Amino acid sequence: MARVVLITGGARSGKSMLAEQRTLQAGSVAHYIATAQAFDSEMAARIATHRDRRGPEWRTHEAPLDLLGALCATDDAPRLVDCLTLWLSNLMLAELDWQSRAREMIAALPVLRQPVVFVSNEVGMGIVPDNPLARAFRDAAGTLNQWIAAHADEVILSVSGLPLKVK
Amino acid sequence: MARVVLITGGARSGKSMLAEQRTLQAGSVAHYIATAQAFDSEMAARIATHRDRRGPEWRTHEAPLDLLGALCATDDAPRLVDCLTLWLSNLMLAELDWQSRAREMIAALPVLRQPVVFVSNEVGMGIVPDNPLARAFRDAAGTLNQWIAAHADEVILSVSGLPLKVK
Amino acid sequence: MARVVLITGGARSGKSMLAEQRTLQAGSVAHYIATAQAFDSEMAARIATHRDRRGPEWRTHEAPLDLLGALCATDDAPRLVDCLTLWLSNLMLAELDWQSRAREMIAALPVLRQPVVFVSNEVGMGIVPDNPLARAFRDAAGTLNQWIAAHADEVILSVSGLPLKVK
Repeated sequence: MARVVLITGGARSGKSMLAEQRTLQAGSVAHYIATAQAFDSEMAARIATHRDRRGPEWRTHEAPLDLLGALCATDDAPRLVDCLTLWLSNLMLAELDWQSRAREMIAALPVLRQPVVFVSNEVGMGIVPDNPLARAFRDAAGTLNQWIAAHADEVILSVSGLPLKVK
Repeated sequence: MARVVLITGGARSGKSMLAEQRTLQAGSVAHYIATAQAFDSEMAARIATHRDRRGPEWRTHEAPLDLLGALCATDDAPRLVDCLTLWLSNLMLAELDWQSRAREMIAALPVLRQPVVFVSNEVGMGIVPDNPLARAFRDAAGTLNQWIAAHADEVILSVSGLPLKVK
Repeated sequence: MARVVLITGGARSGKSMLAEQRTLQAGSVAHYIATAQAFDSEMAARIATHRDRRGPEWRTHEAPLDLLGALCATDDAPRLVDCLTLWLSNLMLAELDWQSRAREMIAALPVLRQPVVFVSNEVGMGIVPDNPLARAFRDAAGTLNQWIAAHADEVILSVSGLPLKVK
């Protein structure tokens, strides 16, 4: 049965680097499942920075919406999903039912054989946003983190690039 | 002497659920002291969701401003105060002296017999808000958390629904 | 060789107080290196509050930009740098190359003899800011925290005035 790891933290808190190290502890080759979509040049630059840092042991897959499909298609090596928060954002922007999709994906986790390391973001520790959509998003992001954490074997909060063990 | 517990964390980080479990560890019936005021439909829906989750072992009290009065009136069973941040917001909106009220309440804690579990929010880990009122609020919220934590027997940071022990 | 400590946390999370205590554990007199610039009355009031709390064992120095110079000039007693986030903000506002300056300062740390306690802020745990400058700042702040944490002997996350050990 797949080992499930959640690594959460703030922006630029070193989550992806910790997640890459953790994934490669589980195998000499690994899949990188990117949920990001390069809508603009800022996001494209951010994606390129992340890609340049990863070495040749990584195979990259794009899964902005169908994360469950990507997990099923990559069950021959450890996977890093970077990140849940962008996946959620993509589902909400596409007006898809994120709750059903998240529940389906979580229900499938026990069937997978290879480890899955999820990266997620803490977005709920600032002032309540004025914008109702931003409030709905941060509520959904917090809920999704709770759901994944409840099913994870390990949960880590990344602080300044260092791991703080939560579970 | 009452045992005082503080459970803090971001939005939708599972604080209330942890606090409910912690309160019911201390007694088979408990008081739920709600500081929320249902100004609009979004807040009303949020209050209803919380209420529906709680079982028949809970007696609900509303205390948007007079938290000390509510604590004194419910000293026959463990209490959950949900949450300090809304109480602070209510006091500031009503232009009442939150510092005096908070000090009075904290000074009364050693006199209470039954446990008190406070829920609070982390609101100071985002970008500095442009709005001066928002800055004043997050400063006050951080200060109030420090005051309560200094007098608490246990302090827990909720991360993705999991407790991280701080004190 | 100087012992390097990083104390990070949200606004009004008690970082400065923890850092003052930690610095005075290392010596009976200490230097306070302030990076704040009093541009307006709100900031002037905040600086005055911090100064009033500190006792006569502190010598205050102002270093809005030349932090390395201030560290070299105060290597006869433990130092508290309060805070890295304002230093970064000052460098970015002055359109100076913060990355080179940060790398130079970090490279000099092993040469210093007296301890250095850095205070920093968590600014990346809220909703993604709409403003591109705010996004660039929070990315830079997170990166700087990671760099300092990698070279620190101790890293502490301050939560409600209480220290959570990260390293």
